[in-house]
Amino acid sequence: MIGARDRNGPPDVTLIVQKFGGTSVGDIDRIRGVAALVGATHARGHEVVVVVSAMSGETDRLIALARKVTPRPNARELDVLLATGEQVTIALLGMALEAQGHRARSYTGVQVHILTDSAHNKARILDIDGDRVRRDLAEGTIVVVAGFQGVDEHGDITTLGRGGSDTTAVALAAALKAGECHIYTDVDGVFTTDPRIVPEARRLERLTYEEMLEMASLGAKVLQIRSVEFASKYNVPLRVLSSFRDGGGTLITAEDPAIEQPLISGITVNRDEAKLTVLGVPDKPGIAARILVPIAEADIEVDMIVQNVGADATTDFTFTVHRNDYARALESLKRVAAELRARGVEGDDRIVKISVVGVGMRSHAGIASTMFQALAGEGINIRMISTSEIKISVVVDERYLELGVRTLHSAFRLDRAPG
Amino acid sequence: MIGARDRNGPPDVTLIVQKFGGTSVGDIDRIRGVAALVGATHARGHEVVVVVSAMSGETDRLIALARKVTPRPNARELDVLLATGEQVTIALLGMALEAQGHRARSYTGVQVHILTDSAHNKARILDIDGDRVRRDLAEGTIVVVAGFQGVDEHGDITTLGRGGSDTTAVALAAALKAGECHIYTDVDGVFTTDPRIVPEARRLERLTYEEMLEMASLGAKVLQIRSVEFASKYNVPLRVLSSFRDGGGTLITAEDPAIEQPLISGITVNRDEAKLTVLGVPDKPGIAARILVPIAEADIEVDMIVQNVGADATTDFTFTVHRNDYARALESLKRVAAELRARGVEGDDRIVKISVVGVGMRSHAGIASTMFQALAGEGINIRMISTSEIKISVVVDERYLELGVRTLHSAFRLDRAPG
Repeated sequence: MIGARDRNGPPDVTLIVQKFGGTSVGDIDRIRGVAALVGATHARGHEVVVVVSAMSGETDRLIALARKVTPRPNARELDVLLATGEQVTIALLGMALEAQGHRARSYTGVQVHILTDSAHNKARILDIDGDRVRRDLAEGTIVVVAGFQGVDEHGDITTLGRGGSDTTAVALAAALKAGECHIYTDVDGVFTTDPRIVPEARRLERLTYEEMLEMASLGAKVLQIRSVEFASKYNVPLRVLSSFRDGGGTLITAEDPAIEQPLISGITVNRDEAKLTVLGVPDKPGIAARILVPIAEADIEVDMIVQNVGADATTDFTFTVHRNDYARALESLKRVAAELRARGVEGDDRIVKISVVGVGMRSHAGIASTMFQALAGEGINIRMISTSEIKISVVVDERYLELGVRTLHSAFRLDRAPG
Repeated sequence: MIGARDRNGPPDVTLIVQKFGGTSVGDIDRIRGVAALVGATHARGHEVVVVVSAMSGETDRLIALARKVTPRPNARELDVLLATGEQVTIALLGMALEAQGHRARSYTGVQVHILTDSAHNKARILDIDGDRVRRDLAEGTIVVVAGFQGVDEHGDITTLGRGGSDTTAVALAAALKAGECHIYTDVDGVFTTDPRIVPEARRLERLTYEEMLEMASLGAKVLQIRSVEFASKYNVPLRVLSSFRDGGGTLITAEDPAIEQPLISGITVNRDEAKLTVLGVPDKPGIAARILVPIAEADIEVDMIVQNVGADATTDFTFTVHRNDYARALESLKRVAAELRARGVEGDDRIVKISVVGVGMRSHAGIASTMFQALAGEGINIRMISTSEIKISVVVDERYLELGVRTLHSAFRLDRAPG
C-alpha cells in the first residue's frame, strides 16, 4: 500500500509534485525552461518534487543499442540499461536548478527506494519510502526523482514500462500527501474531443477520475491509465498542463456531489480497432467460449463483444480486436466457424469507435436516444453499440469519423462552457 | 579498510577480477568480444567478476552535455550524470553474456555498495560489501560491476575520477580475496620503455608494486597510480593484459626475496614538465618557502626540486612544474625574485625527464655512474638530477629524448631477457 500509513493526516497543500515527459525535457534549452518553471513554483512558496522522463528519443536509442547486442535482451539487464535514460535527465535538471540559484538534489528510483514487484520492463509500484524526500523538502531543497524506474525486493533495478513516469509522479504524490500532482504534456489539458477533428473542441476545467479513465482507455492519450487508477485509489488531485503554454489546465479529482456534473464531458475516437463476426452459429451455451478462447490463446485482446439473437435458432457473434491482430484473428475465426458449422465469417477493419463519456449520464436517461438520433440525422449507420455506466460507444464506418464526432460534439453542446 | 575482515583466510585462487577500459568496450562488437573472453575464463573453471568503464567517448559526451547546461555543473549532480556511462556498459555486457549462454548479473556502484567518501568527482573507496557478489558467484553467475563509481554514507552517487575503474577492480579483488586482478588495456603489458622510442623495448614478465608505482608516476600510463597503491596495500596480484591480443601480460606483485631482481626494470620518459630557476638568491633559511609558497597558492604542483650552493653567499634554486603551468609559474617567480633581490629568473620548457627504475638498484652502487657515463658518452648534458630509493631521474634537453632513452636502454641491457 502506497503511503497508506500517511493517508490519515491532512494533505500538505503546499507540496506539489510536477511531472515532465520526454518532449518537455527533449533538449538542454527545454531542461532549462523546466528548471525555470519548477523554480517559479518553488518561489511561490510551494515545496516541489519533480519527476522526469528520459529525454525524447533516448529510450529508443538505448533499446536500439540493446538490440544490436542481441535481438532478445535479458529483461533484467534491459532495465539496468533503460534506467540510465531518466538518470541523465534528473542530473541535468538538478544542475540547471542549482545553476539558477536553487537547492536541488536528484535521486534514482533505487535511491528513493521506489519498491516494485520483480516484473522487469513492466513492474508495478508497491511502496515508496518518502522519508528521504521529506527531509530534503524540509530543508528547502527541490527534489528531482527519476520517473519510470524502481527497485525490487532483491535490490534489482526495474522499470515500469512506457509511460510509467506518470505513475511514479502520482505514487510519490500519494506517499508524500501532495496537494496536487501536475502532469505537464504538450497539450493545454484534456479537451471535449480531438481539436484536429472538431476545431470548436473546448478545454475541460474539471473531470472526474472515472471520466478520465474512460477517456484514456478510449483513445485520449493524455495520461497513462495506470496513473489515473493510482490517483483515484489514493485520491490525488491530478492537473494536466502544458509545458509550453501558460494556463490552468484540467483538474482531475473524485466526483464532488456538491458540483453539478455536465451530462457529457467528452467524445473520444478509437481508430485502432477491427470488427469480426461469426454469422449463424447455433444459439447454445458455451458458444462464446468456443469462439473467444482460441483468440485469447493467440494473445489477442478483445474489446467490444456483442451477440444478437437471430430469428431462427442461430445467432451472430461480433467482437472487436486491435487492427494489428485482425488478420490473425480472422484466420483463427475461420477454423472455429468450420468446427461450429457457422454460416460464415465476416470482418471489417475500416471502422472507428466513437464514444461519449460523462458521469452525468448516470442520472439522465436521454443520452443514448440523443446520440442515436443525431447520428441517424446525418445518415450514419451504427454497426455496434456498447455501453457502460458512464459511456456509450458506437462503431461506425471509418468514413463517418469526422462527421460523427462533429455531429455529437454539437448535439451535446460541448462547444459551450457549462452554465 | 577494504575487506580487512576477509584478509585472514587464504586467497580464493579460482576467483579472477577482470577489468576492461573504455576502448575495450568501445562498441557493440568489442563488448561481444569482451563477453567471449570473460566467458572463456569462466569456462576454464574460474569464478569471474568483471569491472567495466564507460564506452570510450561516453564520459566526454556526458561532460559536454553538462557544460551545455552550465559551465560549472554542481559536483553531486555531475556524478549522477557520469555514473550512467558505466551503467550502460554493464547492462550491455550483461546482455551479451546472457546471449552467449552464461548467467550474468550487472550491478551499479550503489547496488554493490562501493562505499566512498563524499568528495564528488574524485571520491576514494572506503569499503566494499562483497556479500551480494559472493552469493551470485556461488551460484555460478558472472558478476558485472560498474567501475569508477560508488555511493557515500548518505546514499549519494559518487565517482572516483578518471581512471577510477582500475581502482574499483583492485578494491573488489581485495574485498573478494581474488587470486588475480586482470587489467585489460590496449597494450600487451608493461614494457622496459616506450616501444615507439626504442623498438627493442621488451615486455616485462614481472614487476613489483614499487617499480610500477615509480613507472606510473613517471609517465607510463598503463595503470592508475591509486589502483597500484591499493593493490600493494592489500597484496592483490595485478596482471596487465591486452584486450586485443593473446599473451600472459605483465604480473605485478610484492617483491619476492626468493627471486633475484634485475637491477633496472624500465626506463620512463616525461615530456610534460618545464624547468624554472631563480639565480643568485641569498643562501638563507626560509628561501625555499619564500619561492614555493606562492607557487603552491597558485595551485601549481612542483615535481623535482634542486638547490645548488654557489661560490658566494648566494644559491641557485631550480624546480620543475607541468608545462601547462609554466607561464603562470614564471610570472609568479619574477615577482618573488624581485622581492628577494635575486640575480634573475631562468626558465626552459623544452626539457624532458628520463628515469631508470628498478628495485635491484637498492643493493647496487654503480647504477648512477653507469647512467651518467652512458649519457656523457653521447654528449648529452644533464641539467638536473633527482633520486629516490629505486629510481634515478635526469632532466635533459628535449632534443636528446630519443638518443638518451636508447642509450640507457642499451647500457642497462634491457633489450635482453634477464638471465
